[in-house]
Amino acid sequence: MGRGCVKKDASLFRKLGASALIMTGKNSARQNGSLEDVQAALSGQGIAFSLFDQVEPNPSIPCCREAARAAQIAQADFIVGIGGGSVLDASKAAAALVKNDLLDGDVFGNPLTGGALPVAAIPTTAGTGSEVTQYAILTNDEAQTKTSLSNEALFPALAFLDGNYTHSLPRAITVNTALDALSHAVEGYVANKSDPWSRAVALSSLRIFSHALPALAEDKIEAQLRDSLLLASNMAGVVIAHTSTTIVHAMGYSLTYFKNIDHGRANGLILGPYLSLIAKHKPELAQEILSALHIESTHEFSALMDRLLGPKESLSPEEIQAFSDRAIKAKHVGNTPCELSAEDIATLYQQGFGSGSIPL
Amino acid sequence: MGRGCVKKDASLFRKLGASALIMTGKNSARQNGSLEDVQAALSGQGIAFSLFDQVEPNPSIPCCREAARAAQIAQADFIVGIGGGSVLDASKAAAALVKNDLLDGDVFGNPLTGGALPVAAIPTTAGTGSEVTQYAILTNDEAQTKTSLSNEALFPALAFLDGNYTHSLPRAITVNTALDALSHAVEGYVANKSDPWSRAVALSSLRIFSHALPALAEDKIEAQLRDSLLLASNMAGVVIAHTSTTIVHAMGYSLTYFKNIDHGRANGLILGPYLSLIAKHKPELAQEILSALHIESTHEFSALMDRLLGPKESLSPEEIQAFSDRAIKAKHVGNTPCELSAEDIATLYQQGFGSGSIPL
Repeated sequence: MGRGCVKKDASLFRKLGASALIMTGKNSARQNGSLEDVQAALSGQGIAFSLFDQVEPNPSIPCCREAARAAQIAQADFIVGIGGGSVLDASKAAAALVKNDLLDGDVFGNPLTGGALPVAAIPTTAGTGSEVTQYAILTNDEAQTKTSLSNEALFPALAFLDGNYTHSLPRAITVNTALDALSHAVEGYVANKSDPWSRAVALSSLRIFSHALPALAEDKIEAQLRDSLLLASNMAGVVIAHTSTTIVHAMGYSLTYFKNIDHGRANGLILGPYLSLIAKHKPELAQEILSALHIESTHEFSALMDRLLGPKESLSPEEIQAFSDRAIKAKHVGNTPCELSAEDIATLYQQGFGSGSIPL
Repeated sequence: MGRGCVKKDASLFRKLGASALIMTGKNSARQNGSLEDVQAALSGQGIAFSLFDQVEPNPSIPCCREAARAAQIAQADFIVGIGGGSVLDASKAAAALVKNDLLDGDVFGNPLTGGALPVAAIPTTAGTGSEVTQYAILTNDEAQTKTSLSNEALFPALAFLDGNYTHSLPRAITVNTALDALSHAVEGYVANKSDPWSRAVALSSLRIFSHALPALAEDKIEAQLRDSLLLASNMAGVVIAHTSTTIVHAMGYSLTYFKNIDHGRANGLILGPYLSLIAKHKPELAQEILSALHIESTHEFSALMDRLLGPKESLSPEEIQAFSDRAIKAKHVGNTPCELSAEDIATLYQQGFGSGSIPL
């Protein structure tokens, strides 16, 4: 953690092997300097490497498979993933595919008995927390949604957190990824699988957001805010590694799969109504979240979300019906701290997309 | 974590092997029900076990060696340590001695290239945090102090936190172990090796202490307080696993070695003057600690410590001189966030033992 940590702590890579595959998206790792730092760090340690720079947003199994093949051809001992959640998740999935010979239909829910190559994860957005989780979320065309692989073998062996790599992100990505991390902290805090440890970490993340969200809303995106967001997203990642997510994420997946709404934004759209729902059923949980955020009421929270989200997409009644019918079947329902019907979920969609932008 | 977790999550033991050595002190694991729970859990999983119940307070190398021999005779795949810091540390050291053939003089600072048997740690006091650290503190007769083994191989593979096991602890042990944990949180928060993550965890621990310390001082030791203290000590353990401790611990070791003052109490005696020293050199750090504790001033903090400590032992000028000369040579000096001379340390001893009990 910290500025320059990839170069400063380069010797850590040596523990993972003598040959690496670097995985990135098409551009950002070149632009923000992270790829150059990693290449210099690996060279300095005498570690051979090759580059796979074709990771797509919301990665598919074929994309991960292609990367796995590149790792095999390069005889890579480990993978270095540099990017946002898509790249990190693809890196973890590719690392598993190298060690497990699976048909497309067998990837999700597979026990991954072969394990996975070690992964060094270098986030260049402050949202996913994937650098500290056992999850890899992939596009699942068969089920027409995004599906989470969850396996201990997918925990990265190393993570480097350098806020510098997030400094050039455009405002929209900064906000969307922050909303993803915020959603992890909020959902993790209330999740049925939460425990005192995960709740303490969630509150630590939310306390950082108490400063960061107003600054984001006011467009005061400075270096220190970048560092804070990266730390908050990392903590929120640790939270969901323990608690998983709740109905917000299940609802968001349809928004991403069918409406192409960015993952973090999709969560953010639901988060205001969700916290109001929590306040109705578990008022003490909602109050603790609001206190940590230094926010007075769920109304004020929703107004802040609306301000961050700006003009909203629209959903048709048919879409709301279809997405609600999907979400109610997700395992996330059982981790949500109140009883939910498909109608309740439809109401959350309506509220999330309905009110438009409320000025604070 | 949670009541009954040893039995509820007994299947976790199976990951560690088919044969265990249980290590305890002479009595408490029998009295608080933890030994019975562990034996039932292991039996239920078909795991063979034998018992070594001779761990002494402030364990020595010969004691750990004897336990290691018992593990070898039993062909144990892993060790279950049940007890306070002494038992947990001895379990970890014994686990290392099974795998490393070392002369007494080579134990401290050894790289432990042989690794260690996996350890399942079950704390029955709320203080040490040893269940989540890479440390084992042993009596070092050659150097006339307590010395810390520090090695990644010493991280326990499992920890079970059940507050029930701490419910019958007498007040003195409850207070002393709480002071140890508080010292970990305070020292870890200010340590030069701290980082934003460790500081967030330290604050989470301190926030628990903000309720727990007044309750302890008022002798309101109820079940929920026990659970809170166990969580706070566990978090503080995670903190020092990252940050190590500072001069307070180095000063305390002489108090324990030469004056037979309990480890936690030894730290507690120094903690008030230490926070005042921090406030002089790093006022923002002291203020953040006080805020998390909901305490107004370093004076109020010292008064609370005095109330918890009760009547104090005395130190002669010669002892202060000798202990200060030892402490200034400890590596802890470099992790303390201000310049320190032997005179500064002598002043801390004087202040810690000088004022007697100040009524709140």
